[in-house]
Amino acid sequence: MTPIEQARADRQGALNRLVEFLRIPSVSTDPSHGADMRRAADWLAERLRGAGVDRVRVDETPGHPVVHAELLAAPGAATVLVYGHYDVQPPDPIALWESPPFEPSLRDGDLYARGACDDKGQLMAHVEALAAYTAAGIAPPVNVKYVFEGEEEIGSPNLAAWLSAHASELEADVAVISDNAMVAPGQPSLVYGLRGLAYMEIEVSGAPGDLHSGLYGGAVRNPASALAGILAGLHDAQGRITIPGFYDRVRPLDDAERALLARVPFDLTAFNRAAGRAGAWGEAGYSLIERLGARPSLDINGMGSGWTGPGAKTVLPAKASAKVSMRLVPDQDPEAIAALFKAHVEGLSEPGFSVEVRSLHGGRPALIDRDLPAMQAAGRALEQGFGKAPVFTREGGTIPVVADLASILGLPTVMLGFGLPDDNLHAPNEKFRVEHFHRGTETVIAFLDELAKSAR
Amino acid sequence: MTPIEQARADRQGALNRLVEFLRIPSVSTDPSHGADMRRAADWLAERLRGAGVDRVRVDETPGHPVVHAELLAAPGAATVLVYGHYDVQPPDPIALWESPPFEPSLRDGDLYARGACDDKGQLMAHVEALAAYTAAGIAPPVNVKYVFEGEEEIGSPNLAAWLSAHASELEADVAVISDNAMVAPGQPSLVYGLRGLAYMEIEVSGAPGDLHSGLYGGAVRNPASALAGILAGLHDAQGRITIPGFYDRVRPLDDAERALLARVPFDLTAFNRAAGRAGAWGEAGYSLIERLGARPSLDINGMGSGWTGPGAKTVLPAKASAKVSMRLVPDQDPEAIAALFKAHVEGLSEPGFSVEVRSLHGGRPALIDRDLPAMQAAGRALEQGFGKAPVFTREGGTIPVVADLASILGLPTVMLGFGLPDDNLHAPNEKFRVEHFHRGTETVIAFLDELAKSAR
Repeated sequence: MTPIEQARADRQGALNRLVEFLRIPSVSTDPSHGADMRRAADWLAERLRGAGVDRVRVDETPGHPVVHAELLAAPGAATVLVYGHYDVQPPDPIALWESPPFEPSLRDGDLYARGACDDKGQLMAHVEALAAYTAAGIAPPVNVKYVFEGEEEIGSPNLAAWLSAHASELEADVAVISDNAMVAPGQPSLVYGLRGLAYMEIEVSGAPGDLHSGLYGGAVRNPASALAGILAGLHDAQGRITIPGFYDRVRPLDDAERALLARVPFDLTAFNRAAGRAGAWGEAGYSLIERLGARPSLDINGMGSGWTGPGAKTVLPAKASAKVSMRLVPDQDPEAIAALFKAHVEGLSEPGFSVEVRSLHGGRPALIDRDLPAMQAAGRALEQGFGKAPVFTREGGTIPVVADLASILGLPTVMLGFGLPDDNLHAPNEKFRVEHFHRGTETVIAFLDELAKSAR
Repeated sequence: MTPIEQARADRQGALNRLVEFLRIPSVSTDPSHGADMRRAADWLAERLRGAGVDRVRVDETPGHPVVHAELLAAPGAATVLVYGHYDVQPPDPIALWESPPFEPSLRDGDLYARGACDDKGQLMAHVEALAAYTAAGIAPPVNVKYVFEGEEEIGSPNLAAWLSAHASELEADVAVISDNAMVAPGQPSLVYGLRGLAYMEIEVSGAPGDLHSGLYGGAVRNPASALAGILAGLHDAQGRITIPGFYDRVRPLDDAERALLARVPFDLTAFNRAAGRAGAWGEAGYSLIERLGARPSLDINGMGSGWTGPGAKTVLPAKASAKVSMRLVPDQDPEAIAALFKAHVEGLSEPGFSVEVRSLHGGRPALIDRDLPAMQAAGRALEQGFGKAPVFTREGGTIPVVADLASILGLPTVMLGFGLPDDNLHAPNEKFRVEHFHRGTETVIAFLDELAKSAR
């Protein structure tokens, strides 16, 4: 039996193991799940051993452990570093789940559970692929290393330091991550671009304390009004961001890339369902998919001032604040953009109020060379696994580990996503298509084989 | 002895009684103080009896009781209705009090306690004035009726119904309330204008649910941005409110009234201390005191959208909301203004978002005729009590009972305030100047005498 045949023969076994993994409520942000985090890491380490990996470690960090494993069975061949995460988002609001989040439930070909797609199901496709080689008695044709962290959902506070400390044993030729979705059902895709992030906080201060709106209203500047003016001015009427210098380092889209992106079967129905009346907005002169993946954006993520509880309170607030984040594209630099933002917004201070801006965090945008042999190998693997050649696309989100893998380990990352756009990540009723779990496993096997061929 | 001499002779006794009253923690908003509310009402009823009032009742309401009393000892003379409230604000934050809020403490001529000024101290000036007549063996020269409620600090939810139900027994010529402050130490004042209120809530809706700002940012309209634009547009560069028709029914200030207001010794130092850098703002063409009392205003009281907790969350909010209130002046009508606001703001809906406006509550502005005999009598009484003729002024706040007394009982209200601007109402270390308590008592006696003379 080939490893792929082996994987097909043991689909039920693989599914059972995934279900077992999903039963562990490894919610990284919730201290009451500390023991579950440890249990999930140990379960995963044990499962890697069962899949035939000999060197497996559960490494301590100041937070949740990193599971590290490697199987170097192909001397002289390429080495691939697999990244995934075994932690999950909190299941709240639990009342909206149709079946309990940590009791996996199969309905209409979908497996419903917190973490089903993000990222336990996709991570397990890599483990099951290795298990298939082992069960088939065939050594993987490339060397594989695994890094499974337990803090992705809380911003990976300890990952970069761990990667740096273990850089030498993590040496590889390429990284692969399965933690994203295909563009549409039946259409595999390869993401070659991710946006970066600059996340800012604005605080506008007026009077030294809250005032009574009757006694002072009409004679003092209201910082909430001032903040509203600042925020409203961050876009012009064409949807362009008004911060001076913001677009200076944006790499323009050339005709070839625009043509490539135009071929991506964008799921407008799903987009419209999610966006509702808020859709059909954005920077003039760009298509939806260009706006989402290849053009930078600026959004208010939060805004607060004064009384927001039920009913009326006649307060004239002393402060107003907002969280504003910008999604960046190559070659924008998060720190440089944060500095431009700060200079511009703090410059809007007036005698009646002061403005302070803090940078909360940032992440670099990423662009992976589409002609990289590993990208081409991934393309062929997806075609084998899902029966259709993938489209190349850019995504709007930020996957900070992709930037870390590039800057700390010098690795390009292949994003081999098996999810679907409607998998309800971070939401109630998260699911993973069972067929995608199995085809994902087969795609990983094909990827390792194709990688071995392309490196020859 | 005249009643004023009597009051002077028993200053210590009056102070002791006030201290006793202040020891009762009559916090109307806190259900755990239900028994204290009842105790305060009973104490007050008993004290009125002790002061010589024969008909005293503690009337039940769906909330806290109303203490109702009357002494009709001057057939054919005028009748004055005294309104006050025996409930107090919660003392929180207790840690900031220099002495316990319900253990009255005398320091430097000030009596510190929750309710010292608002309103137990000022209310007791009226009770002690009556007690002085009784102790001097002299019948008050006018008829007096008392309405002391226990729900002023929670918005008087049951007062209007109680007033309506008892309208015939509350018949009077004028109402008097001591629940406000003089403009400055040493300068008594008579407030003849109060602003009204229209309190609105705006909700802007975009997508049907919160979206991920990476996956959707740049291609959907952000409702927080839309709300910011709406709010920023509610004032023009001259500080004028932009709602069409908003100023149509504002009674213009004539030269006589502007001259009158210009004579009010506005405490700019205290204003600047409270307003800080937010000061020196407002509608062009009007003085500070005109902006605060005689011109309408519009303020954001609260604003909320998305993530406002610590740190970063990359949410693209589905909704954004704000509370916006307008202070109104005669002859603006709260309902008409609410309708103008709603029509204008809902009209700002665009294809990318919808706007909904709700009216939360409203209150009418009030303007009392300065030439009213009772106002002139109050002016002479203040001059006797405090040694200086009062200035006439308008205040920015809303005292809903003034509108209720006018609309339900047809009574103009004399606002005979004995407090000072720095008495820390609703804040830690509330105080009442002891000298003002005693002079207030004497002023009330003088007021009753002057009222009797002016009615002749």
